[in-house]
Amino acid sequence: MKRLSTASPDFPAAFAALLDEARDTTARVDGVVAGIIADVRARGDAALIDLTTRFDGWAPAGAAALRVTPGEIEAADARIDAERRAALNLAAERIEAFHRAQLPRDLEMKDTAGLTLGMRWGAIDAVGIYVPGGKAAYPSSVLMNAIPARAAGVGRIAMCVPTPEGEMNPLVLAAAKRAGVTEIFRIGGAQAVAAMAWGTASIAPVDRICGPGNAYVAEAKRQVFGRVGIDSIAGPSEVVVIADAANDPRHVAVDLLAQAEHDESAQSILITPDATLAEAVARAVEEELRHLPRAAIAGESWRRHGAVILVRDLAEAAELTNRLAPEHLQLMVDDPRALLGSIRHAGAAFLGRYCPEAVGDYVAGPNHVLPTGRTARFASGLSVFDFLKRTTWVEADAAALAVVGPAAVALGEAEGLTAHARSVALRLGG
Amino acid sequence: MKRLSTASPDFPAAFAALLDEARDTTARVDGVVAGIIADVRARGDAALIDLTTRFDGWAPAGAAALRVTPGEIEAADARIDAERRAALNLAAERIEAFHRAQLPRDLEMKDTAGLTLGMRWGAIDAVGIYVPGGKAAYPSSVLMNAIPARAAGVGRIAMCVPTPEGEMNPLVLAAAKRAGVTEIFRIGGAQAVAAMAWGTASIAPVDRICGPGNAYVAEAKRQVFGRVGIDSIAGPSEVVVIADAANDPRHVAVDLLAQAEHDESAQSILITPDATLAEAVARAVEEELRHLPRAAIAGESWRRHGAVILVRDLAEAAELTNRLAPEHLQLMVDDPRALLGSIRHAGAAFLGRYCPEAVGDYVAGPNHVLPTGRTARFASGLSVFDFLKRTTWVEADAAALAVVGPAAVALGEAEGLTAHARSVALRLGG
Repeated sequence: MKRLSTASPDFPAAFAALLDEARDTTARVDGVVAGIIADVRARGDAALIDLTTRFDGWAPAGAAALRVTPGEIEAADARIDAERRAALNLAAERIEAFHRAQLPRDLEMKDTAGLTLGMRWGAIDAVGIYVPGGKAAYPSSVLMNAIPARAAGVGRIAMCVPTPEGEMNPLVLAAAKRAGVTEIFRIGGAQAVAAMAWGTASIAPVDRICGPGNAYVAEAKRQVFGRVGIDSIAGPSEVVVIADAANDPRHVAVDLLAQAEHDESAQSILITPDATLAEAVARAVEEELRHLPRAAIAGESWRRHGAVILVRDLAEAAELTNRLAPEHLQLMVDDPRALLGSIRHAGAAFLGRYCPEAVGDYVAGPNHVLPTGRTARFASGLSVFDFLKRTTWVEADAAALAVVGPAAVALGEAEGLTAHARSVALRLGG
Repeated sequence: MKRLSTASPDFPAAFAALLDEARDTTARVDGVVAGIIADVRARGDAALIDLTTRFDGWAPAGAAALRVTPGEIEAADARIDAERRAALNLAAERIEAFHRAQLPRDLEMKDTAGLTLGMRWGAIDAVGIYVPGGKAAYPSSVLMNAIPARAAGVGRIAMCVPTPEGEMNPLVLAAAKRAGVTEIFRIGGAQAVAAMAWGTASIAPVDRICGPGNAYVAEAKRQVFGRVGIDSIAGPSEVVVIADAANDPRHVAVDLLAQAEHDESAQSILITPDATLAEAVARAVEEELRHLPRAAIAGESWRRHGAVILVRDLAEAAELTNRLAPEHLQLMVDDPRALLGSIRHAGAAFLGRYCPEAVGDYVAGPNHVLPTGRTARFASGLSVFDFLKRTTWVEADAAALAVVGPAAVALGEAEGLTAHARSVALRLGG
């Protein structure tokens, strides 16, 4: 963990180093992935069966075995205990309510020239959700990726999840059922992305692919981009906690570790004007690490990427936060709304001393798929907007064209696009 | 030009071939581009001066010469004739009005559990606009890229435009002035993209880069993606015209050629239920080509990629259009609004017999930067949304956390993320 203070003369250099720190260590796998995509395009389901046998450790009996049956989904759902079922239901309902509230309105305006202009939102026809298998199979991610698509009005939501050694994760299937997923396929890796982008005899192609995955999945999404839309490729996760003196250091410490336990590349940063809190949190982190099952991962993340930054005041904390543009931001101060007002760049903010980021990961309602690695400067979290697209439209009659047409003719001619100009001039009687 | 008819038994195969037709012929330039980006990162302005001397045919006297001065902009503006000035002003005003009307509202909702949830829109700090130089320097593209950024509230809008042989295009500078561009640099190619993404001593880095360019520019945008945001990489342009019998074949023909004159890879498709119109338009295209200055380009596009599709009725026309998901769509029929209602996928639609697409290219108001190559299935035209990003936020107090917290604990434990669960449980007094 690094200790920085804005009062120190070497702060600008130290902070710049923190900003430029590369935490992503993605291997280059483009050749392998291109081969897998070509194989799926050429051989379809037969390639999926071979690749699943090779990489996932189970041998599908045929193409039909790649699809999870309604009976399997119901059986998985029935195995969930009551507490988890209630939690999943609450989460699904709250995520759906928030994302429905995001739905935008169409635009229509008639102007003084007599033209009517409009912008219409429409849902994508078909979406594919990738869900990692094995230990990193998070039911919460299924909800966060699929529910915004359903709220946007997407009719077909296909999901691919690898089932290593043939084993299905019941909580993932139960989450998919609640999220409105219409088809589930037991495939993973680059082959799943290829199948969703290009289609096979048993998997119809989709228009957009979302969801996290390993380096192979990320590279496959890159390679099919253009053929289909993709979500942004997430880097390691991060949190900035701005906390004043009036906080329980243990709360702050566990919040920092909740981020750090994701993986060794995660980053947790505390920014505080209070030196006493800073030291108390640093001690509490070491203490908490002793009881944490994922202490090896969280400890490594904290040592390599963690930071405690001492600032003069909250205004300075906001300024540094805007330069960090963090994925997650906790505002544990007296007036968090006022502080939020001076934050320009953050994926998601959590206001108050009783609003740890984990609330947002699971049940608050806003999405937990968020821009990482300072991309909150220009990117946003997943939302219904990722599953909608706009068609703009213009309506003009002869009278309206007479008002604006001459300017179009002039600009078409200025750009040397004569047919553009003539398409208007002809109708003006020219 | 291909003639297709849905009444023909080979229609499904012919239409599928039309859908799969590859019109893009981008060369692979990734190695060259990676070298240029590395050079700009390493040597900054010195690299820009060398590369400009090599590729643009003029030798900047120093880094200061890379920036267009306010005096040069004013002088260029003064050279524009009155008709073109008026046209540029009308276009700028209308584009601004439409894009301001797109601005979305923030969201805030308090729910029954006592949490307050919100979503706040904010502008990107700094944007870079790439504008091609030479013959393809279109002032209309300057307006279409920069005005949405200004309407969104972007404070800094830098523009890069190469000036081959040192020559500046006065109409491009005049458009930049009207569009609110705050800085103009006389650089182009991959080096311009690298400079905007990474910054040099004289060019501050931006957060997002937009605008069309050649293969080098497109590849450079791909390579800097992640460091900054980029717009989608446009393919060849296309139009679908749906026209009934009551149209002047010459109007339809010129509209098809207005698309075709862009470049040889452009595609113009007429869909009509009227065989007589279809033949009359085909003849009118040949006739119009005789007078067209860009007849070589337009003729080549029409011969290679043009199509006339005869359909049973307008419902079938809409169905085929949804499969084509065209960039531009003209609806030259009696009730174009009703027909628009059955169109799910199109970048921009133009309604009526007096609304040629060229009106939308220049003066209507909606953007002319639109999704090409069937990507309107999942993508949208440029808008204020490209220059805004969202921060979601959650506010909870102890009472609200008591309502939703237990579900977060249950899900955190189910996912094996113990610190997540503990960050909530601690605050619940657990």
